[in-house]
Amino acid sequence: MARTAITPTREENYPEWYQQVVKSAEMAEVSPVRGCMIIKPWGYALWEQIQKQLDEKIKDVDHDNIYCPLLIPLSFLEKEAEHVSGFAKECAVVTHSKLVKGDDGKLVPAGPLEEPLVIRPTSEAIIGDAFARWIQSHRDLPLRINQWANIVRWEMRTRMFLRTTEFLWQEGHTAHATADEADEESKRNLQVYVNFVQDHLAMPVIKGEKSPSERFPGATATYCIEAMMQDKKALQAGTSHFLGQSFAKALDIAYSDDQGHRQHVWTTSWGVSTRLIGGIIMVHSDDDGLMLPPRVAPLHVVIMPIIHNEADQANIMAQCESLAQKLREITYHCAPIRVKIDANIEQGGRRAWNWVKKGVPIRVEVGAREAADNSATINLRYTPYKEKRTCSQALLIAEVVETLDNIQHHLFQRALDFQKAHTKIIDSHEDFYAFFADDNKEGHGFALAHWNGDAAIEEKIKQDLKVTIRCIPVFDESAEAGICPFSSEISPQRVIWAKAY
Amino acid sequence: MARTAITPTREENYPEWYQQVVKSAEMAEVSPVRGCMIIKPWGYALWEQIQKQLDEKIKDVDHDNIYCPLLIPLSFLEKEAEHVSGFAKECAVVTHSKLVKGDDGKLVPAGPLEEPLVIRPTSEAIIGDAFARWIQSHRDLPLRINQWANIVRWEMRTRMFLRTTEFLWQEGHTAHATADEADEESKRNLQVYVNFVQDHLAMPVIKGEKSPSERFPGATATYCIEAMMQDKKALQAGTSHFLGQSFAKALDIAYSDDQGHRQHVWTTSWGVSTRLIGGIIMVHSDDDGLMLPPRVAPLHVVIMPIIHNEADQANIMAQCESLAQKLREITYHCAPIRVKIDANIEQGGRRAWNWVKKGVPIRVEVGAREAADNSATINLRYTPYKEKRTCSQALLIAEVVETLDNIQHHLFQRALDFQKAHTKIIDSHEDFYAFFADDNKEGHGFALAHWNGDAAIEEKIKQDLKVTIRCIPVFDESAEAGICPFSSEISPQRVIWAKAY
Repeated sequence: MARTAITPTREENYPEWYQQVVKSAEMAEVSPVRGCMIIKPWGYALWEQIQKQLDEKIKDVDHDNIYCPLLIPLSFLEKEAEHVSGFAKECAVVTHSKLVKGDDGKLVPAGPLEEPLVIRPTSEAIIGDAFARWIQSHRDLPLRINQWANIVRWEMRTRMFLRTTEFLWQEGHTAHATADEADEESKRNLQVYVNFVQDHLAMPVIKGEKSPSERFPGATATYCIEAMMQDKKALQAGTSHFLGQSFAKALDIAYSDDQGHRQHVWTTSWGVSTRLIGGIIMVHSDDDGLMLPPRVAPLHVVIMPIIHNEADQANIMAQCESLAQKLREITYHCAPIRVKIDANIEQGGRRAWNWVKKGVPIRVEVGAREAADNSATINLRYTPYKEKRTCSQALLIAEVVETLDNIQHHLFQRALDFQKAHTKIIDSHEDFYAFFADDNKEGHGFALAHWNGDAAIEEKIKQDLKVTIRCIPVFDESAEAGICPFSSEISPQRVIWAKAY
Repeated sequence: MARTAITPTREENYPEWYQQVVKSAEMAEVSPVRGCMIIKPWGYALWEQIQKQLDEKIKDVDHDNIYCPLLIPLSFLEKEAEHVSGFAKECAVVTHSKLVKGDDGKLVPAGPLEEPLVIRPTSEAIIGDAFARWIQSHRDLPLRINQWANIVRWEMRTRMFLRTTEFLWQEGHTAHATADEADEESKRNLQVYVNFVQDHLAMPVIKGEKSPSERFPGATATYCIEAMMQDKKALQAGTSHFLGQSFAKALDIAYSDDQGHRQHVWTTSWGVSTRLIGGIIMVHSDDDGLMLPPRVAPLHVVIMPIIHNEADQANIMAQCESLAQKLREITYHCAPIRVKIDANIEQGGRRAWNWVKKGVPIRVEVGAREAADNSATINLRYTPYKEKRTCSQALLIAEVVETLDNIQHHLFQRALDFQKAHTKIIDSHEDFYAFFADDNKEGHGFALAHWNGDAAIEEKIKQDLKVTIRCIPVFDESAEAGICPFSSEISPQRVIWAKAY
């Protein structure tokens, strides 16, 4: 076996491999605060790219960014009964406003609040309250806002990026005059996620609607995108909710229609979070560590001068500087190519492996041999570590955009092939249970099976196999009715079943 | 008197004028959460410009962005005694992790935490804990990180942007091997603020050091920038702290020096917040509302088609679109000119006033007359509302960058002239008290007076006049020693006294 940078490998222990990829790429670490992580520079730089690029798309669909308070009065959260019961078990509650010295000299909470404040687990309640003030007339509709914020949900079992007590996200909120318009809006915004996640993160997704049991608390419909990780489990990568009038009625968000009658609005909300980073890691990385899609990579190219003789140093460094400069002048998807020169030659072999583990798409070496004829030795991260080719610096520069686009496309196609290879149409109860049996190494993945819509069947399968309906692919126009293998009843269409994060 | 858009005027009631500028520009509103505000689209778009432009400067001085937890265990905060006592009176404390139904059916906090968590009032304690893990060897130094985050301090008296319970900020944190290097770092980062606030926000500032009584809790030295508002009060616009070894020792942040001996590091921190928006408002705006410095304005140019006859509409709109497109192709300080066409002609006169109140630097009208000869009628926000000139669209395009730069320069110079006109050298106790007397309309502003360094004098003046030492201009090389008028003792240099926000 070839040496791999990550121990254990995916094959040996996938969950532990994931933690080691995060660690060796220096993306994040567990913090001493229960269930929270510290996002380190490499992880945060990736989040900045995601944030910047998705923010542009959100603005393109007419959302204005705002910022609402972190703290939500308990009475606000309580207004929508289903909503609050969905989050009550995981709320961080602020009860005091200062600290004073107790009898033993230790600080204790003091200044008890009249009303407890909840750290936002999501912002429908507080933003809905603002909407109720901002919306008076039909001329105020539609209203579309977005917020980049931190969220706290007191999770029992946490895993870096995938499920943490505090996480960063974006939440869009809209209000509309009609149900149809609001439902269309939530579908349009789902499509923003499909495009972003597929085109920028190179993660193929299946879009659909959640079954009623998996809906967001308070929603009429929850639409979602689901991606397949390399362990064949699903990751819910984004959701878009048609909230009906539940929040509008609970928070009295209403407008005067053109006849002057007061009507409640119809609202939506939609969000993605730092969880996307977990998805990028699990879809693309290998046993040598992180592998980043070029569109969102904090660096596209790392240039490493290889200096064996001091006499060569000046010339090699000058060529590296010139190459970096020329690459930075090139535009890749509306921004300059991101290039770094890593001249830490004293690190020896660790220098290259560091960038392999961090997943930089293109690694370039310039040593005495390359400097002599203005060439460069190149490794692409998705090919084996030792697979290198030497070409002229001019050619590298001329082809760098095409190379990055090819890598992006390759990563997407590879993930799509994997997803397709592990998606199976299943028509019998027996085959379904066999597919998800613990000892079936060939099995797992996405099962496309009919379902009659009965929540009891869903619950039993969840108990038996830890398998859930990831989504009902309601946007798939080729979907056909059939027979549910669990009830022998009519099923309107196949749904996607999988184990999930 | 000419009509003004804002009631009351600055002259009539400055604090209320401020609130009305915020309101009429739709920048923010008071939220139902005590002491917190909702930052609305126009205010948030301004913050996005500030954040983006300052972030570039922070990266230029080698800070990497990270994200640390919102919640700090009480035991962490307690480690540095001076630090915690400085913040204990204004801490939001999380004591419970869920909500359950009480006997009356109402939700009550449950799941009490073993250790209370404090919502970060600043992050030295939690980032210092990370530094203690990340720093092992002298090769790990210097370490420079930055974080964009929300902060909660339970303030008793709040005012939008200037002092709110929750606010947004940036906090840089660094660690160094020597005291000199750390002190130099904190001075260098102060200079980043001087350049940013003066060049981008057009706010002239005076830089200096805080007196010991005004230092950040736990700091050895606090450097700051102070700006003069139009009511002649000072606003502390940014601070940079040399923290000595107080946090390094409290949190055991240490490295092995090149002899292998364990040494505590020297740390610094530096921050600016959404308070800067309050500064922009109070320095530049007038009785017609907000006035934005072009560098950070969310929009540079608003184009308003003026349509009286439907027959003209197509031609006028086409010219507006073409003009907007050509302007957007122009680069102003490394980004495209930000242009909007406002075609809401049914709003009548309110349409133009809306943009006046929002402070957009350049307002352009294109009506039938202008469309006939490809001209445009222009008003610059800093000139009177009715002061318009008509020029060719070609000239507007050719000169737009110069025009924006001129406006930027004009705003800065006007504010600097105001600051200088209201800064007075004072040498006697009597003159000092007269300068700050409530009924002295010509007085107030910045008083440059000697001070012997006695905190008791500082405290008495604060009690008598609500005047504090804003800073000791330690970077002013022309400073000379003299006699303190309050003690008749030797004073090393004049200090700046003022009332402050």
